[in-house]
Amino acid sequence: MATVALIQYENASPEVRAVFDDIKRTRNVPDVNNFWKALANQPETLRRIWETLRPIMAPGALDPLTKEMLYIAVSIANNCEYCVHSHTASARAKGMTEEQYAELLAVVGMAAQTNALANGLKVPVDPAFLAGQQR
Amino acid sequence: MATVALIQYENASPEVRAVFDDIKRTRNVPDVNNFWKALANQPETLRRIWETLRPIMAPGALDPLTKEMLYIAVSIANNCEYCVHSHTASARAKGMTEEQYAELLAVVGMAAQTNALANGLKVPVDPAFLAGQQR
Amino acid sequence: MATVALIQYENASPEVRAVFDDIKRTRNVPDVNNFWKALANQPETLRRIWETLRPIMAPGALDPLTKEMLYIAVSIANNCEYCVHSHTASARAKGMTEEQYAELLAVVGMAAQTNALANGLKVPVDPAFLAGQQR
Amino acid sequence: MATVALIQYENASPEVRAVFDDIKRTRNVPDVNNFWKALANQPETLRRIWETLRPIMAPGALDPLTKEMLYIAVSIANNCEYCVHSHTASARAKGMTEEQYAELLAVVGMAAQTNALANGLKVPVDPAFLAGQQR
Amino acid sequence: MATVALIQYENASPEVRAVFDDIKRTRNVPDVNNFWKALANQPETLRRIWETLRPIMAPGALDPLTKEMLYIAVSIANNCEYCVHSHTASARAKGMTEEQYAELLAVVGMAAQTNALANGLKVPVDPAFLAGQQR
Amino acid sequence: MATVALIQYENASPEVRAVFDDIKRTRNVPDVNNFWKALANQPETLRRIWETLRPIMAPGALDPLTKEMLYIAVSIANNCEYCVHSHTASARAKGMTEEQYAELLAVVGMAAQTNALANGLKVPVDPAFLAGQQR
Repeated sequence: MATVALIQYENASPEVRAVFDDIKRTRNVPDVNNFWKALANQPETLRRIWETLRPIMAPGALDPLTKEMLYIAVSIANNCEYCVHSHTASARAKGMTEEQYAELLAVVGMAAQTNALANGLKVPVDPAFLAGQQR
Repeated sequence: MATVALIQYENASPEVRAVFDDIKRTRNVPDVNNFWKALANQPETLRRIWETLRPIMAPGALDPLTKEMLYIAVSIANNCEYCVHSHTASARAKGMTEEQYAELLAVVGMAAQTNALANGLKVPVDPAFLAGQQR
Repeated sequence: MATVALIQYENASPEVRAVFDDIKRTRNVPDVNNFWKALANQPETLRRIWETLRPIMAPGALDPLTKEMLYIAVSIANNCEYCVHSHTASARAKGMTEEQYAELLAVVGMAAQTNALANGLKVPVDPAFLAGQQR
Repeated sequence: MATVALIQYENASPEVRAVFDDIKRTRNVPDVNNFWKALANQPETLRRIWETLRPIMAPGALDPLTKEMLYIAVSIANNCEYCVHSHTASARAKGMTEEQYAELLAVVGMAAQTNALANGLKVPVDPAFLAGQQR
Repeated sequence: MATVALIQYENASPEVRAVFDDIKRTRNVPDVNNFWKALANQPETLRRIWETLRPIMAPGALDPLTKEMLYIAVSIANNCEYCVHSHTASARAKGMTEEQYAELLAVVGMAAQTNALANGLKVPVDPAFLAGQQR
Repeated sequence: MATVALIQYENASPEVRAVFDDIKRTRNVPDVNNFWKALANQPETLRRIWETLRPIMAPGALDPLTKEMLYIAVSIANNCEYCVHSHTASARAKGMTEEQYAELLAVVGMAAQTNALANGLKVPVDPAFLAGQQR
């Protein structure tokens, strides 16, 4: 249960409806997800998040499926239950196969493990990494 | 500075040298990174991590560059300084362009933001996400 | 469901009842929240947490509402579902308006985003920050 | 050392300079901090972050100092070294006293502790919290 | 609800059944937990996790109960609800008393608090710690 | 570099000196660590942390070395560099062998990995875990 009421389209202000309409049009869906209905209590945040999220997730140097998988990886590491579910669903809708999903989780789990080992051992960064990065 | 001494090849046991040799051969590098030199204090862990990491990062349903970018995303979220530097260097060595890197960071940052919003608002998961996932 | 049984007042030991009574008196509430009922399985921890929490959340150089909002911010970042709900309720009880809540969440979300960007880019700390802090 | 070169004003593109100029004007400072110089490698992200951060941190229902303290709280929880230093410096520049800073840290530390206890005991959310939040 | 279907023994492939059988034999339990039934969608990960987890949790320089308590501590800090419940149950099955559990939680909570304080104050590491660690 | 000046004994107030003296006496050390010198800027927090930390880390149902190892585990998961170094040094001073340290890190790393997998797959908690915990 959210800390705010979920705002349905029929009860939304014109400002909120405009964002909902754009989300539905862009994603070709009949209704927006709960995330947007919760954010609609804060119309300025709703508009800002949508307007910045849309171009970031659009095709670019990275394809949309890769972006969804990166989103899943971060959401797992930050343990956002809503985001894990919503972006796993989105990635599948964009064609993620179960083989890709298995490899994604294997990488995320292995990264969590070696992150812990490197943070526990406090391994100093190799100078070679730094030298190659300043370009 | 690490919590353990970094073990150089010339001081390593035959068991450790065998792992170091395999890392160098697999990656075609003249020496292993500090992470492995620190792990070499715990030879069983060194061997296990390398033997499980190698196949996970190999080409599969996801290509090696995508895997490196997922690794960066998790390492940022877990804030592992060593891992951020080492996997950013690896991703670049595997061809990550600066445009791809910019989009990777934009997605990771946006995910961190919406993770916080969803966790703060405690948005309930849409039933539609769950229905689609049980296959 | 908790990992321990929730201890109700009528089943509590005198030691636990004394803490429960002090919480109810201090907060002017008819019963304590589940957090305290769960902690009551560990009476020494119950007493210690209450006795240290009470003065920290009392009016001081920061007012109680600001303190509740800081508590919410940390609880979101650590993703403590119980704490997000309990402190959001407390902040509202102390007068947090929906406009303040919206700004709180906007700051928390933006901070999560720039934290990720700074951790990803590994931005070196400006010497000017450090110089100004040593006083 | 960053994963990218820090871009100085004299080497910046007109697009980047325009953002740098706006930051310097808004904050009345002679130069921008390293965070912006690192982000300048990704001009679109630089522009987006600045244009969304500026209004969020402006005076509103919450005053700028409260916002800086919330930023510090999140940055500590996410352990962003750069952000802790930069926002602690900003909060002091906006008038945070050492007494306020002490209370801020006490709240953040106590929240981290009770977050861990609630997450460890898996305390169920009190129905009363939820009932009061749906408005 | 999981992002994948839970695979029951009767519907499992021979490869998955072999792992399930080994888990049941090693732990002397009539069925495997949900974690393994979910992982069974990714048979290679199922096998790898079980084959690496089993020796790590076996008696060694640390006894199995200490290992379970360390697992609980990490699971709380990473806020993995499933893992907190499963490893708290395992620790109790291995003899963890309620007094030990209370002290475990007290240490975890205190560590979370001083972690936040040290990260907030950015305390520099004492040279003496480093000197003693390089052996 | 800390966000505050480190307060040395000779410049400390009588209130701070009393805490420093108790730390030195309890631990039989000639000087306190940087953590306490930083906290000394906030004398009330210094006193409170020391007075609550001391009994929690004292021998009880868990021995002091087990407590130090739990502290290390949490500090790694929260990525507190200072705390990882200070508690690794403390654990070694209390007799942690390199074999124990290796097993500690192996458990912490494995826990981080399975935490990520369980959080990614959103595995539902087995009812059997919950049934056994309510006592």
